[in-house]
Parts: sequence; structure tokens; C-alpha cells
Amino acid sequence: MDILIIGAAGMVGRKLTQHLLATGHLDGKPVTSLDLVDVITPDAPEGNGITITCRKADLSDLAAAPELIARRPDVIFHLAAIVSGEAEADFDKGYRINLDGTRGLFDAIRAQHGTNGYRPRVVFASSIAVVGAPLPYPIPDDFHTTPLTSYGTQKAICELLLADYTRRGIFDGVGIRLPTICIRPGKPNKAASGFFSNILREPLVGQEAVLPVPDTIRHWHASPRSAVGFMVHAATMDTSAIGPRRNLSMPGVSATVAEQIEALRRIAGDSAVQLIRHEPDAAIIAMCEGWAPGFEATRATSLGFSAESNFEQIIRAHIEDELEAAK
Amino acid sequence: MDILIIGAAGMVGRKLTQHLLATGHLDGKPVTSLDLVDVITPDAPEGNGITITCRKADLSDLAAAPELIARRPDVIFHLAAIVSGEAEADFDKGYRINLDGTRGLFDAIRAQHGTNGYRPRVVFASSIAVVGAPLPYPIPDDFHTTPLTSYGTQKAICELLLADYTRRGIFDGVGIRLPTICIRPGKPNKAASGFFSNILREPLVGQEAVLPVPDTIRHWHASPRSAVGFMVHAATMDTSAIGPRRNLSMPGVSATVAEQIEALRRIAGDSAVQLIRHEPDAAIIAMCEGWAPGFEATRATSLGFSAESNFEQIIRAHIEDELEAAK
Repeated sequence: MDILIIGAAGMVGRKLTQHLLATGHLDGKPVTSLDLVDVITPDAPEGNGITITCRKADLSDLAAAPELIARRPDVIFHLAAIVSGEAEADFDKGYRINLDGTRGLFDAIRAQHGTNGYRPRVVFASSIAVVGAPLPYPIPDDFHTTPLTSYGTQKAICELLLADYTRRGIFDGVGIRLPTICIRPGKPNKAASGFFSNILREPLVGQEAVLPVPDTIRHWHASPRSAVGFMVHAATMDTSAIGPRRNLSMPGVSATVAEQIEALRRIAGDSAVQLIRHEPDAAIIAMCEGWAPGFEATRATSLGFSAESNFEQIIRAHIEDELEAAK
Repeated sequence: MDILIIGAAGMVGRKLTQHLLATGHLDGKPVTSLDLVDVITPDAPEGNGITITCRKADLSDLAAAPELIARRPDVIFHLAAIVSGEAEADFDKGYRINLDGTRGLFDAIRAQHGTNGYRPRVVFASSIAVVGAPLPYPIPDDFHTTPLTSYGTQKAICELLLADYTRRGIFDGVGIRLPTICIRPGKPNKAASGFFSNILREPLVGQEAVLPVPDTIRHWHASPRSAVGFMVHAATMDTSAIGPRRNLSMPGVSATVAEQIEALRRIAGDSAVQLIRHEPDAAIIAMCEGWAPGFEATRATSLGFSAESNFEQIIRAHIEDELEAAK
């Protein structure tokens, strides 16, 4: 299996790379080469007998995709995007990278398809940002996509392209609507949704964290481990079972912030919970009132995708994969 | 009011032009100029004191839109598209015209917006082809868009762009998901959906028509008169009532072919119905089993859009607007 990961330097990309190197297999077949691509050159991991290429490439340069596709990878993970805040701040850059970049990738595959019948599996990282308030809870699989950000718009457009290119037989695509990934490892960042991770990750190591919203806010989460599981399952599943609706809302855990905090208390005690400082931020409150409270994810579940079933499992995944692994 | 109609040579474009010239007003204000644009130069109608410009322009030429927008029309009706069959047969042409052409238009408006705060009303002709089988009946307003044609994909993408550009204040857009227009005036054409009109229009003037599907097929219809009404209402309504979900499934009449035929019988008698020849066509049957049986259209109705309430009204609209008008 020759595998291309675009967006390999990001958090999910790095964890997916680690997973593929650790198992050495995908869909029961040995991974022979791994092409790691991002706008910054990804760090080269240990090869473990697999040929690894690390490349810097920017999909918004329309010459980039044909070069990436020239070696005809069997599986393409497309995880690259600029994030919500940046796509909102820079209209042109958002459309250029998140829409034109993806379309350029799909068209590069189409060019190879036209030449020699090439038809790879394409796993596309979409987002729950494709839906926009007012939202029911839980959100059914057939709910419409009315995004309230340019980022969500771009992801929803790429979902439509993915389905149409797949319907025409150009590639075999699966779009994965990722929940908010929690607990994100690393340092607190400025993403508006960062607090969902911060209020757990920091207290677990004795650090303070700020909660900028009321603890009644409900949102939709899955662990980094689950995100990697979604990607691998999308790359290996029998896609004939999906039909033409190729974009799937992934399973996850719906929880209020209060429920997150109670899960933290059960695992790490009152002393951890006391490290959470409540500092309401009106701007973040306004934003996150429009975020998705949770999905039915009936189709994805019946197609074999799975995630944690409660918040304690999400916290324990972090402890096992980050805190214990670092020991 | 300075009005631009792109796609002015098409059936709805011509009827909209006639309506604007006949009333001479839009939103209570006099129409001062009418810019009629299509890939073939539209016929110049009588001006009725209104300055009329007829121009040939192709939106897939990205230099075209900036020129059309340079005079800063108050209202833009964007009705131009290549049809479903052609967009399916010619992948590149479909995306170039239906997607890139529309985006080029939106970006030309954005360029003027950036320069001088220009912010026109944009009425976009979308289609019920944005949904794809399996479909419930009636289809709720919040049902997802999973098109099964490249044409439907392109319309769904343009809907997303329209909503995002509107949200950002670049223009004030309304997307109109048109039902199948019935009865289409003129000669029978080769569109797969043409029979819905043919089996009424031809018998009404004593001609035979072919019905290629079982009469149990249910579909969603509105008259050309209603289509013009949708356009005018979208151009003049208070858009603050719509909110960010700018694409609306229009009201219409849901009817089986048998119900269409019974309406014809009540209006024109058994002799008209006997002119319908049943010649099943497997290809057309396969296609139309995936077509939309009907929409709730709750939002559009509450926002003041209206259509016929039964099929006899649709037939009578044709008799009044085409057969009696031609006398």
C-alpha cells in the first residue's frame, strides 16, 4: 500500500502516521511507502522498513497536486486546511486553500484517472462546521448543511465535490465529519474551541485552565485516538455499503461542560476541578452557542465507525496515549 | 431600478423580462434600465420608456462578469446555467459554467463591494436537483442536499456560496429552488422531464404526446407564471426575515402523472386524454424514480412565496398565458 497524507504535520496527521508505522499494515496489506506532505515539511519518523518521503507542498499552488498524485498512491488522506478563524479572517486564502486546493487535488486524480483508470481511495477530513444554528439535538444524518462560517462553507462544498467525483467513478471517496477533537495534546492554543481540551488537559497535570463559557454548553467530542480510527476505517471499509451519500457525521460523545467536569472529578478528584477558573468571555459564548450539540450518527455507526461512549473514556484515552506514553 | 438579467434568453428570463416591462415597476420603484444578457444575444423587446441593453456574454469567460457588474445594477437575476443533461455529458463545461461562472459573478460583485460598498440584491435560480433519492415525501426544508447529478452538485455549491457571500455582507442573496416548470411553452424538447409538460400542452391543441413513465410517478411542479412570481418576490421581499439560510425550496403542486391527466380530463375532456400515448422508456423511468416528489416549502410559504394549489390551476395558467394570449 502506497499512502499519501496531505496535512501530515497536523495533530491528526501525525497520529495517523504513527499508527500506520506502528501497525505496518492497512486493510491487511503491508504499507510499503508513506508520502507525508504539509505546508511545512513534516518531521521524518522512523521508517520501520517503510519508505518515507517528507515533502513541503501547498495545495493552493495548483502545480502541487499533480506532482503529489503522479506516483499514484493507493490511499490519499486529505487532512489539509486552514482553520476556521483564519478562513474567516482571510476570505481569499480560505477559498484558495480549503476549496480550490481540494478541487485541484480532486482534478489531479481525475487527470490520472482519465489517463490510466487510476481510482484511489480518498479520505477527506470534513467538519461538524458544515451545520449551523439553529440546530436540533441530536442532529439527524439527513439534516441540511447551512454553515455559518466560510470554513464550514468550504468544507460543505468539498463534501459535494467528493460525492460527485465518487459518483462519476473518478475516485472512491469518503468524507468524515470530525467532532471536536478532545483532549487535544500540546499547549493551550487560541482556537475558540480550545477550552474544551484546556479544562481537562491542564488540570490533569496540575495546571490552571480557563473556562470562558457557562457549564451548560453542550458540544460534540471524540478523542484523537477515535479520529485516527475514523480515518483508518474510512480507508479500509467496503464502500459499496455507503451508497452515493459519501459524507458521514462521525459518532462521538455529546456532553455539557458540566458533564466534562464531572468526568474529570471522577478521574482526578476535586483538586483537579478546582484548577478550572471561570472567566466568561462574551465573544466565545456567542460563538459556541451556535456549535453542534451532537449528532445521531446512525449511518456512520451502522457502517462500523465507533468512538468513545462517555467522557471518562475520552479522558482515559488522553491519559494512556499522552501522559503514560510520555513516561 | 437598474436590473440585470443573466440568462435572459431562456424561458423564465423572457417571461420575467415581459413582466418587468409590462409593470414598469419593481418594489414600487420605476424600472429605469434593463440589461439582458445570455450566451446568445437576447431579442430586444419594446422598451416602454425603459432603457434596454441586450448583450451576448458567457459567464465562463471570467472577464465577462466584471463588465456586467461595472454599471452596478440594483438587482441581479442569475438564471444562467447549462442544463442537467449537458452538465452530465460534459464534466468540464458543467463546472466551468454552472460553478466557476457563478463564482466569477459573485466575485465581480465582491470587487465592486470592496471598492464602493456596492451591495445588490441577487436572485439565484437554483433547482430541486440539489436533493437526491432516497427522498421522503414531502421533503422538509431542513433536508440535506445530496444531489445525484453534476448539475445538482453545481447548484448546491452555488447555494452555499450565495449564503456565505450574503452572510459576509457582499450582496443580499436569495436562492430559489425552482420546481419543475409545467407547462413549459413551445415545442416538445428532449429533456428527460419534458413529458410532464408535453402530455398536457400537446393534447390541449389536439396533438398527440408520449408518456414514457407509469402514471404513478409523483413530482413537483409550478407554472411559468409562478416562477416569475418567485423571482419578483425574491427581488423585492424584506430579506431580514430570511436569516442566514438563504436558499429556499419554493412552493408548488405535488401530483402523480395520473392526477395531472385527471386535471387535463376535467378541463379538456376525454378526447384530449386519448391523445396521450403510453410508451414506457426504461431510461426515463429509472431517472425519474429519483426525482423529488414534493416539498413542504414551509419557510418559503411563510415568507410570502406562493404557487398554484392544484394541477387544474397550472393548466389554466397555461391556457390564459399562452393559448388565449396568442389569439
